[in-house]
Amino acid sequence: MSEGELTRRGLLKAGAAGAAAGAAAGAVPEGAEAKPRRRPPGRRADVVVVGAGLSGLRAARELVAHGRSVLVLEARDRVGGRTLNHSIGSGKIVEVGGEWVGPTQDHVIALAKDLGIGTFKTFNDGNNVYYANGTLLPYAAGGPLGPVPPDPTGGAEAEEAITLINQMAATVPVAAPWTASNATAWDSQTLETWKQNNLHTPNGQALLDVGIEAVFAAEPRDISLLFALFYTASATNETTAPDINRLFSTPGGAQDSRLVGGSQLISIRMAQELETRPPHRVLLNQPVRIIAQTRSGVRVSTDHVAVSAKHVIVTGPPAITALIRYQPDLPWMRAQLTQRYPQGTVIKCEAVYDKPFWREQGLTGQAVSLTGPVKVTFDNSPPDGSPGVMLGFIEGQEARKASQLSPADRRKAVLDNLVTYFGQQAANPRQYIEMNWSTEAWTRGCYVGFTAPGVLLDYGPAIRAPVGRIHWAGAETSDYWNGYMDGAVRSGERAAHEVLAAL
Amino acid sequence: MSEGELTRRGLLKAGAAGAAAGAAAGAVPEGAEAKPRRRPPGRRADVVVVGAGLSGLRAARELVAHGRSVLVLEARDRVGGRTLNHSIGSGKIVEVGGEWVGPTQDHVIALAKDLGIGTFKTFNDGNNVYYANGTLLPYAAGGPLGPVPPDPTGGAEAEEAITLINQMAATVPVAAPWTASNATAWDSQTLETWKQNNLHTPNGQALLDVGIEAVFAAEPRDISLLFALFYTASATNETTAPDINRLFSTPGGAQDSRLVGGSQLISIRMAQELETRPPHRVLLNQPVRIIAQTRSGVRVSTDHVAVSAKHVIVTGPPAITALIRYQPDLPWMRAQLTQRYPQGTVIKCEAVYDKPFWREQGLTGQAVSLTGPVKVTFDNSPPDGSPGVMLGFIEGQEARKASQLSPADRRKAVLDNLVTYFGQQAANPRQYIEMNWSTEAWTRGCYVGFTAPGVLLDYGPAIRAPVGRIHWAGAETSDYWNGYMDGAVRSGERAAHEVLAAL
Repeated sequence: MSEGELTRRGLLKAGAAGAAAGAAAGAVPEGAEAKPRRRPPGRRADVVVVGAGLSGLRAARELVAHGRSVLVLEARDRVGGRTLNHSIGSGKIVEVGGEWVGPTQDHVIALAKDLGIGTFKTFNDGNNVYYANGTLLPYAAGGPLGPVPPDPTGGAEAEEAITLINQMAATVPVAAPWTASNATAWDSQTLETWKQNNLHTPNGQALLDVGIEAVFAAEPRDISLLFALFYTASATNETTAPDINRLFSTPGGAQDSRLVGGSQLISIRMAQELETRPPHRVLLNQPVRIIAQTRSGVRVSTDHVAVSAKHVIVTGPPAITALIRYQPDLPWMRAQLTQRYPQGTVIKCEAVYDKPFWREQGLTGQAVSLTGPVKVTFDNSPPDGSPGVMLGFIEGQEARKASQLSPADRRKAVLDNLVTYFGQQAANPRQYIEMNWSTEAWTRGCYVGFTAPGVLLDYGPAIRAPVGRIHWAGAETSDYWNGYMDGAVRSGERAAHEVLAAL
Repeated sequence: MSEGELTRRGLLKAGAAGAAAGAAAGAVPEGAEAKPRRRPPGRRADVVVVGAGLSGLRAARELVAHGRSVLVLEARDRVGGRTLNHSIGSGKIVEVGGEWVGPTQDHVIALAKDLGIGTFKTFNDGNNVYYANGTLLPYAAGGPLGPVPPDPTGGAEAEEAITLINQMAATVPVAAPWTASNATAWDSQTLETWKQNNLHTPNGQALLDVGIEAVFAAEPRDISLLFALFYTASATNETTAPDINRLFSTPGGAQDSRLVGGSQLISIRMAQELETRPPHRVLLNQPVRIIAQTRSGVRVSTDHVAVSAKHVIVTGPPAITALIRYQPDLPWMRAQLTQRYPQGTVIKCEAVYDKPFWREQGLTGQAVSLTGPVKVTFDNSPPDGSPGVMLGFIEGQEARKASQLSPADRRKAVLDNLVTYFGQQAANPRQYIEMNWSTEAWTRGCYVGFTAPGVLLDYGPAIRAPVGRIHWAGAETSDYWNGYMDGAVRSGERAAHEVLAAL
């Protein structure tokens, strides 16, 4: 089956296409759906991987490259986890999940290259716009890393805050943030408390809010200061100094570039690779219900199939890994950690126009606004600039509030924001797409799991400490680029090598 | 079957006695264990209650009193939830879970009385001891509500902190703490931040730590200031002003009295009552896996039985309710709330001696110590004072640390504390009992679920907002005496009336 066919009929589609996707990417045992209560058929593999997102498929790929047999069990009817392409017609797609890559994200970039997937720069020509206190202010997009929006009363303070955060983050070891010399003090307070103590202008504070919401899809009050510093320290590679601007920025930062064909293509290509060399398998529609562990192996069961293996790699948000029944029970430190690792809250909104009309006005399509629901936007048009796609994020408490609106009212509120930032042409998109990751049963929130105060300090090591033959992967388990596609890829590599060393 | 028989053979025992308990308190369908994959036998009831703890059984009792048919499905092989009697021989028991009641806990006290269960005062004659900086200081136990240990450098400050907390708590509406006029500011910071800003002596701070650990089994850094204030406001009834001393205190407070026969007896008697009037049923060993909801009813499935009903009441810690599969998925605000409602961490340790030797020294058996692992103790002897039982709590980070010790090392550390507080006679108990509630699969932490900053503010209403035909009960859902046995009982009453109004 060609990639085009997969895109149209199979892996990329939810709902009715699920069966086709199952047939394409790994067969659900025939008749299993009709007789779920029959004793599930047995399978064997060296390693079971739970979750066919970037981390799980990357782990599987590594294990297969080392001659091991692998079975990947995916709950959804598609691969890709928190990456998801969405067709906008004429063979074009937009991503409704994670999409960007940037400098120092070496692992995901190398993987994409290896899979024949190219990158292109996020559109960044011209001016960004900053909207505050009823005033729209264009400013040069510039780069790399920056600039902070030129707020007349709060901009300088926001810059100072960035400097202070970078200084603190530089002392946080990414593999063990709980060992930072100030870990106790920093994990005793929220980022909001730090903000209140260090920023004093309303707009300086509001600018920090926007930045934090854009990175965590959560509010500064939700997040431990230590976690925010860890996340800053993590957003780089082994050789480059951390800088929170890397999280905020387009050129040179985490929003630098995009993937030709969409980020989900990385997972699709990895799944295809696994499928083309039997007995490697990716089984869709197979939520794992039970992981039973003995001295000699593991048995991983879904409603339809049970797999015996030597090890299992469990991927996905920490809170979601708690939904599996473990036999015996997990160590209680792990069980309590997963009570303490919530997912952020984000609705990704995309408005499709005939063309990216803002470009003609000399605008990048990037807005930063102190007024929601959409406070941050990007030009998310396909590489050829046609059609024009404007992307707006509703994040943190704005997402909590906006979800109470009717779809029509929410659409109107989003488009009103876009009109404010880019003019009347934004009012009537030919297509409007929303993705609320909090409603996704196998994610339950994006972008990422984070921790409130006290958690890293007392539970930190449990995030990736293997439990016997159970190994943990997923973006939240990575030392570098935690929470990002690069962190997911890294975590898959790390988990695979953990298993290879133990096999 | 007599209550004595139940105590010895049935409901109170875990493990092998589970089958007997099942036979006593509600029959698991015969052969179900042997053929778990067979389509489960169908049952019908007006209401299914998930969980046979205080809240679930109280709800069931209320529904039955109103002529409704009820089926209670309990995951464990016993009733009682977070209350659990433990035999210490000669027909005597100690509680290894929740045990105390006190003034303003009107609902649990009325229920106990109605069930013929008496109360007796927690032993409080003589002096408490306070241990700080290597010095042991006896002080009059006094009461009601107080006193704060007489720390020469920090005592006055701790008293001031109590006054300030009470003033703030008085402004927090227990049914909707997120509407307090200072809710945003208070839910933006940890209790630790408030402590650092308001207490400045090391011992004043340490005294607050001990108090908070004793109430929440968590650290001040783990908890939202707003949640701590809500919990303080909640710890009373509709007519009595809140006072955080009520949480800390023995006479007049939450540790005022105990139940003759042990607190679990309340649940056992309620289960017996339900069992003696068929078709009411309490089924043990029935973890609920799926709750499917249609317009006309619910279908609640375990591995062995599926029950059709008009409504379902789900009890238990919020984080545990997330382990059930809901069809359709729960609203995402509820699903995200349960990612943000962790359980505390406590190991309850009890040392049994021939007699309560500390009484002969004029001591109550109550210690407050700035040195762990055991920082708080109580005389937990049976009503007749024989044998002597000394109870020590390992809470919060001390529990996280102590769980890394071997059982022998932990026992030694606990007994070393007891020797420090009560003398050499404490060194050699004839029996030593530990209960780590974090390891209990159906609780995963005690005493209670709490929230970090930001959660009450954005997710608060989801704690008990019904989801169609699903109603929520459990100690964490109560307005008054949230987290306590009284709150559990109240929540069961509230949920039952919610259902009765809808039936």
